[in-house]
Amino acid sequence: MNGMLTLRILGALLLFLSGALLLPIPLALLDADGTAGPFALAAVVTLAAGSALFKCCKSGKELTLREGFAVVSFGWGLYALFGALPFVFSGAIPSFLDALFETMSGFTTTGATILTDVEALPRSLLLWRALTHWLGGMGIIVLSLAILPMLGVGGMQLFKAEVPGPTADRLKPRIQDTAKLLWGVYVLFTALETLLLMAGGMGPFDAVCHAFATLATGGFSTRNASVAAYDSAFIDWTITLFMFLAGVNFSLHYHALRGRFGDYFRSEEFRFYLALTLGVTALLAVLNYGSSYDSVADTLRYSAFQASSILTTTGFGTADYELWPVVAQFLLVFLMFVGGCAGSTGGGMKVARVLLLFKHAQVQLFRLIHPRAVRLVKLGDLPVDREVMQSILGFFALYVGSFVVATCLMAATDLDVVTSAASVVATLGNIGPGLGAVGPVDNYSQIAPFGKSVLIGCMLLGRLELFTVLVLFFPSFWRK
Amino acid sequence: MNGMLTLRILGALLLFLSGALLLPIPLALLDADGTAGPFALAAVVTLAAGSALFKCCKSGKELTLREGFAVVSFGWGLYALFGALPFVFSGAIPSFLDALFETMSGFTTTGATILTDVEALPRSLLLWRALTHWLGGMGIIVLSLAILPMLGVGGMQLFKAEVPGPTADRLKPRIQDTAKLLWGVYVLFTALETLLLMAGGMGPFDAVCHAFATLATGGFSTRNASVAAYDSAFIDWTITLFMFLAGVNFSLHYHALRGRFGDYFRSEEFRFYLALTLGVTALLAVLNYGSSYDSVADTLRYSAFQASSILTTTGFGTADYELWPVVAQFLLVFLMFVGGCAGSTGGGMKVARVLLLFKHAQVQLFRLIHPRAVRLVKLGDLPVDREVMQSILGFFALYVGSFVVATCLMAATDLDVVTSAASVVATLGNIGPGLGAVGPVDNYSQIAPFGKSVLIGCMLLGRLELFTVLVLFFPSFWRK
Repeated sequence: MNGMLTLRILGALLLFLSGALLLPIPLALLDADGTAGPFALAAVVTLAAGSALFKCCKSGKELTLREGFAVVSFGWGLYALFGALPFVFSGAIPSFLDALFETMSGFTTTGATILTDVEALPRSLLLWRALTHWLGGMGIIVLSLAILPMLGVGGMQLFKAEVPGPTADRLKPRIQDTAKLLWGVYVLFTALETLLLMAGGMGPFDAVCHAFATLATGGFSTRNASVAAYDSAFIDWTITLFMFLAGVNFSLHYHALRGRFGDYFRSEEFRFYLALTLGVTALLAVLNYGSSYDSVADTLRYSAFQASSILTTTGFGTADYELWPVVAQFLLVFLMFVGGCAGSTGGGMKVARVLLLFKHAQVQLFRLIHPRAVRLVKLGDLPVDREVMQSILGFFALYVGSFVVATCLMAATDLDVVTSAASVVATLGNIGPGLGAVGPVDNYSQIAPFGKSVLIGCMLLGRLELFTVLVLFFPSFWRK
Repeated sequence: MNGMLTLRILGALLLFLSGALLLPIPLALLDADGTAGPFALAAVVTLAAGSALFKCCKSGKELTLREGFAVVSFGWGLYALFGALPFVFSGAIPSFLDALFETMSGFTTTGATILTDVEALPRSLLLWRALTHWLGGMGIIVLSLAILPMLGVGGMQLFKAEVPGPTADRLKPRIQDTAKLLWGVYVLFTALETLLLMAGGMGPFDAVCHAFATLATGGFSTRNASVAAYDSAFIDWTITLFMFLAGVNFSLHYHALRGRFGDYFRSEEFRFYLALTLGVTALLAVLNYGSSYDSVADTLRYSAFQASSILTTTGFGTADYELWPVVAQFLLVFLMFVGGCAGSTGGGMKVARVLLLFKHAQVQLFRLIHPRAVRLVKLGDLPVDREVMQSILGFFALYVGSFVVATCLMAATDLDVVTSAASVVATLGNIGPGLGAVGPVDNYSQIAPFGKSVLIGCMLLGRLELFTVLVLFFPSFWRK
């Protein structure tokens, strides 16, 4: 581990964050809500810390894999830490742990909140909440498509070839270029959704905040009742569409915008994701029709919204799904484990991994019947490398293991069975709302401090695909 | 698939069952409880079916892998089907589905019951219930140590070398010899436990029935309050000890009885199993001391009993653990997934598999830090074959997948969240009692017929290590 280089890069990241902290200040001044000072102070503190790290830590060495892990894990941690300052300085969230929870939830695009009354917050702070989502989403796209494949994390090597470049066959080796191309798509979609939401009757401020939260598959709303507050079919369907898009590998969007629209359907992960979204919507509709809703239009609207919201791990709400049939609730909980596509802003285990797990099990069964036959797991037309498959299987074991350990820790805070398990699923998968006391119409305010800390850890662990964080706990990681 | 040969072997198995059905008749005549007739009738029906299959289906061919799968799956199914007859013929369990549930629960050594008042049953039927456990346990020992390793199911090949033989290095190739040796141990332990339970004040009938249920890690009791009815520390500790022993690979017991006592500790699976049992007992004791129990002796007694009962998937009860702290309940539920050692009568995923999953994940993390290093997963001193590891990972995926599908099906019968999930965990892992409406002081009588059918499937699927049943659903299995 080259500690100096790591600290220097972390310093640079903080310098960027200090710039972002200035963004809500114009709105704060316009509304004269008294948060301009807190934001400026937070920016200055972040600037000071960033400069100190950047200037004092010099290193001529190249970045290696180990520093990569450290930068990603500590980078996300520091963003949550410093990003929490405006909430604390303004007094809007007096407890630092609560503010850290809210900001970690933002940057990891989880959308779990400890706020009981979102609408009481000044608009500048609501904008900052939405911005933490949006910036976190930007980070995720680059992380999952450019950084993790290089680090070899949990099978993400599969997607090395999907990083877009100026020509189809040549990959741009530099992260910055990849980032710019994908961020172009991200910004374009955000702008489009904002315009559509405004066309649907949402005010410009709400439209921007919701577009930020949608594209990042975050889920923070500016309204206590979440998207249900607008009670508009047009808005619901618009958000459903953009949640679905945000759950797709962004390199496919990039290809599509360059005219290669057929790439969507050439991707087996996309086809499976589409089938899953449509299948679950249909199932939910069958379960809800006549029981939860009377008209076909309402049934489809609420079922499609909730299926997309959970599968993409956004977590917006238009319905209290805890009033739906129990089997519908289980479908949603299991979808929380699946998550969006690899290379999207969605969380969970990722559609590609679940698809490959399924195929692996199938191959194992096939081998029992035909012991001498050779059959490889394939994704699309390409056989999946054995090492990559091993890594995905290891990821699955770690995901389930993390769920088990964290659930026991949550249960130790005297929560009931359902809440203990659901709060972990909903944060590890970066969804937000779960079931029980952290259901779609509840929030995380009543969780004990120890429990909040565990969930903060879950959000980070899930967002960074487990491996990135867990390697830091290996003693050999720190040896020279 | 050689259908004729398969049917012939199934016929032979039924002939054996018809003999077993005669065993409770002396007791029925002694008690004059009117069940001698029903038992005799059941034996005759089974004899007729068995003879018909055995005589009509002739085949000179050798048994191959495919017939092996079919014999095991259909064999267990037929035993449950015909073993249910005495319950139906005697009128003790009028519904055939209920009787099938009870018998499948017996032969799979699950111990889940649909009876609301066990003590109302005549002793002959209680003996038959206990016998289904005991015979099922015999079947499991041979299945897991001699048949499944040959079939290559889910990593059980690992235990090929552990089948005992007359000399340490030479393996007896024939299943019958293996069976005889291991059954010797099984019978010896059953006799020992019976004597100890009688020394503890249990009547001979209850002692035999409980010993049958313990060695098979079944869990059917002759009392409504299960083992709690005797309220004796001596009996509790005796059963705790024998549950622990029943959860150990029986080939280790065989070696120990031949003087190689050290083999226990040379087995990494045994060491992990021992550590897990002691660790969970200690954890439960810490959680329960002062809250659920006042004295140290009581705390240890109830914690150790419940830890062993769940980890070995027996399911006997001395305490209503739903009154324990929630974290203790989660510990127990997660233990239900682990189960006993491979080659024991215990269910679940098996300790060895869980240990190897953990090691696999560790190796994956290690590789990220040291990409050029080669590190293999080992069990004891031996590296685990890559194919075996793949098979275990496939098993894990299928286990979780089966849990997900079955839980959704249970939820569709309008059960609550906890009961839906817990009923599946408790039957798939062959434990018996779960949480919620199927907790330790409840039973399965109120589950809807569709739900009971799903759980019957879960018991069979879990008991036969998934693969054995699931291959039958591959169309290519049935092609010549």
